[in-house]
Amino acid sequence: MKLAIDEARKGFGFVAPNPPVGCVILDANGDLLAKGFHRIFGGDHAEIDALKQIQNENDLKGATIYVTLEPCAHEGKTPSCAKRLALLPIKKVVYGLRDPNPLVNGKGAEILRSAGILVEQDEALKTELEELIEIFTFVIENKRPFVALKVATSLDGQMAHVSGESKWITGETAREYSHFLRAQYDAVLIGKETFLRDNPTLDIRHPLFVGKKNSVVVLDTNGEIVEQISRSNLCRHRDATEVFVAISDKLNLSTDAATLLHCKVGRDGKIDIVDLLGQLFSHNVQSIYVEGGAGVLSSFLQSSCAQRFYQFIAPQIIGAKSGINYSKNVSIAELPNRRELRNPKTIGMGRDILITGRLD
Amino acid sequence: MKLAIDEARKGFGFVAPNPPVGCVILDANGDLLAKGFHRIFGGDHAEIDALKQIQNENDLKGATIYVTLEPCAHEGKTPSCAKRLALLPIKKVVYGLRDPNPLVNGKGAEILRSAGILVEQDEALKTELEELIEIFTFVIENKRPFVALKVATSLDGQMAHVSGESKWITGETAREYSHFLRAQYDAVLIGKETFLRDNPTLDIRHPLFVGKKNSVVVLDTNGEIVEQISRSNLCRHRDATEVFVAISDKLNLSTDAATLLHCKVGRDGKIDIVDLLGQLFSHNVQSIYVEGGAGVLSSFLQSSCAQRFYQFIAPQIIGAKSGINYSKNVSIAELPNRRELRNPKTIGMGRDILITGRLD
Repeated sequence: MKLAIDEARKGFGFVAPNPPVGCVILDANGDLLAKGFHRIFGGDHAEIDALKQIQNENDLKGATIYVTLEPCAHEGKTPSCAKRLALLPIKKVVYGLRDPNPLVNGKGAEILRSAGILVEQDEALKTELEELIEIFTFVIENKRPFVALKVATSLDGQMAHVSGESKWITGETAREYSHFLRAQYDAVLIGKETFLRDNPTLDIRHPLFVGKKNSVVVLDTNGEIVEQISRSNLCRHRDATEVFVAISDKLNLSTDAATLLHCKVGRDGKIDIVDLLGQLFSHNVQSIYVEGGAGVLSSFLQSSCAQRFYQFIAPQIIGAKSGINYSKNVSIAELPNRRELRNPKTIGMGRDILITGRLD
Repeated sequence: MKLAIDEARKGFGFVAPNPPVGCVILDANGDLLAKGFHRIFGGDHAEIDALKQIQNENDLKGATIYVTLEPCAHEGKTPSCAKRLALLPIKKVVYGLRDPNPLVNGKGAEILRSAGILVEQDEALKTELEELIEIFTFVIENKRPFVALKVATSLDGQMAHVSGESKWITGETAREYSHFLRAQYDAVLIGKETFLRDNPTLDIRHPLFVGKKNSVVVLDTNGEIVEQISRSNLCRHRDATEVFVAISDKLNLSTDAATLLHCKVGRDGKIDIVDLLGQLFSHNVQSIYVEGGAGVLSSFLQSSCAQRFYQFIAPQIIGAKSGINYSKNVSIAELPNRRELRNPKTIGMGRDILITGRLD
């Protein structure tokens, strides 16, 4: 199952809105016959990708198929995997998670059992299995975008110097990995101030994802950037359908360069996040990577609208007196109210580290 | 050498002011004959500890001795190790670092060579070797105490809630390890506010160091705690020679319960750290573990008087608006002036992590 999970991860960034899935086939003696993964949206599912490596169907006599997600029961862009497996002389299918999709949930396993194939669920690596498909699961269950927050800081939590300077706190390895993460999400979200200060492109600069395009969202309650956005780096390689600017629903503005989202505004003068997420979802944005600045990150942290947190930490001290903390507007009444990450994980990134976990 | 380093670490907290040293002896075939370490101040050096496991001196024919530090040349509390090794039928001695002690530096190796023994230096694990004896080396070279700063924080760098509440940000594993670290230092240092708020004992609560006593230092410019310190937990199990209170040299106070250090005071109204460290050194305090609060940590971070930094980080967010950052008074003019940790290391501590590195 570990190997199947590694296979599944190869599909990260290529298969959305499908879930990444990996598959490993062992012969009757337990030796590796084939492995495969869901490579690209609309393409073969993991089971089929692995089966294509089998020259002779006789090799499958008594074989066991490991797959990270229950084989699909329904016909979508591709035929049902469960029905395909049911025709093979295999002995057993071991799957990781039940498919949260109500069109499958349990039905894939049922098809296999009816065909006389042993079916087992192996959740020993449940956390890893769930993380593989967390965006897919969340979207199916909640019908709104999955939101990840990302920040790069010093040890003392500072994401920039008060001057605004933040290039660069973390090293190259961390920055490249942040681009890998960008590729996992439909859209990158920033605040107006970051837009004005950096005029960023927010594109994906990573060798695995050359040419991949993502959408962007800018929060701009008062519509201050609408007039100039057509000349920004954000719009350089993107259509108007891929650039969203969230402005107050009281404003009457228009532009050809971007899609304006007229959102409710809270008493604090900030875009209502729930309203914004609902509108983005109706534009088919299923996952969002929030990159700052500190005001935007604080707003999402104070809300209950963020599901995953990524903090890159560089081994350095900037000083809270001369820095900007990403949680600058976050306040709790007492210590037990702090936000704990669920299933936290630390990953080495050259000199830096990445800590990530679930916020919900 | 890796094995010898692991041996040396077993002496952590027991051998100061000596350096921890480890030794491994391989026979002529390269098989392990014995290993040993410097167990306690005044006791056998690592080489002798290892040799005691050898029943028959003939086993040492053609043997190689690995030792993390150059064998000593001088007679101190124990005879010279180099002279003892020179009498053995061994083939080779491989040592890690040259002894920074001018009484040894190179002379140990010379004694061995003169006896016809091959001598090699192996610095492949230089950083680990240097870290083993960093306090020893620093004190010999600088004639002032080695200072480590320790803080436990959330991801956003907060060491406490504004209410002062900080129990507990990190989990049990991290807290136990912090007691292990306390045992490596001669004294624990805190500010007056921490003293008044927590009335801490600052003793060593760790299974390896039951009954070990350490000194404490409290910074108290205006001498506000002098009258009450005799009734504090700090003084409960300590003599007056083990409790230091640093007060302004303008004050004329006295107490039987503690040793008052009359220190210069800076324009900021704070104890002059250089003066304080000099006075502590003359009281034979060679290493100091600074535990807070935020004002004290900030002062040491702004100075150039701290050599090592330990930050335990819990995967949680407290919010900068409702928290206290340990670097609250630290300020830099621009980003390139930030303090970078040298040789940073990340160690898992249950749900938390420890990041440590050199500040100088």
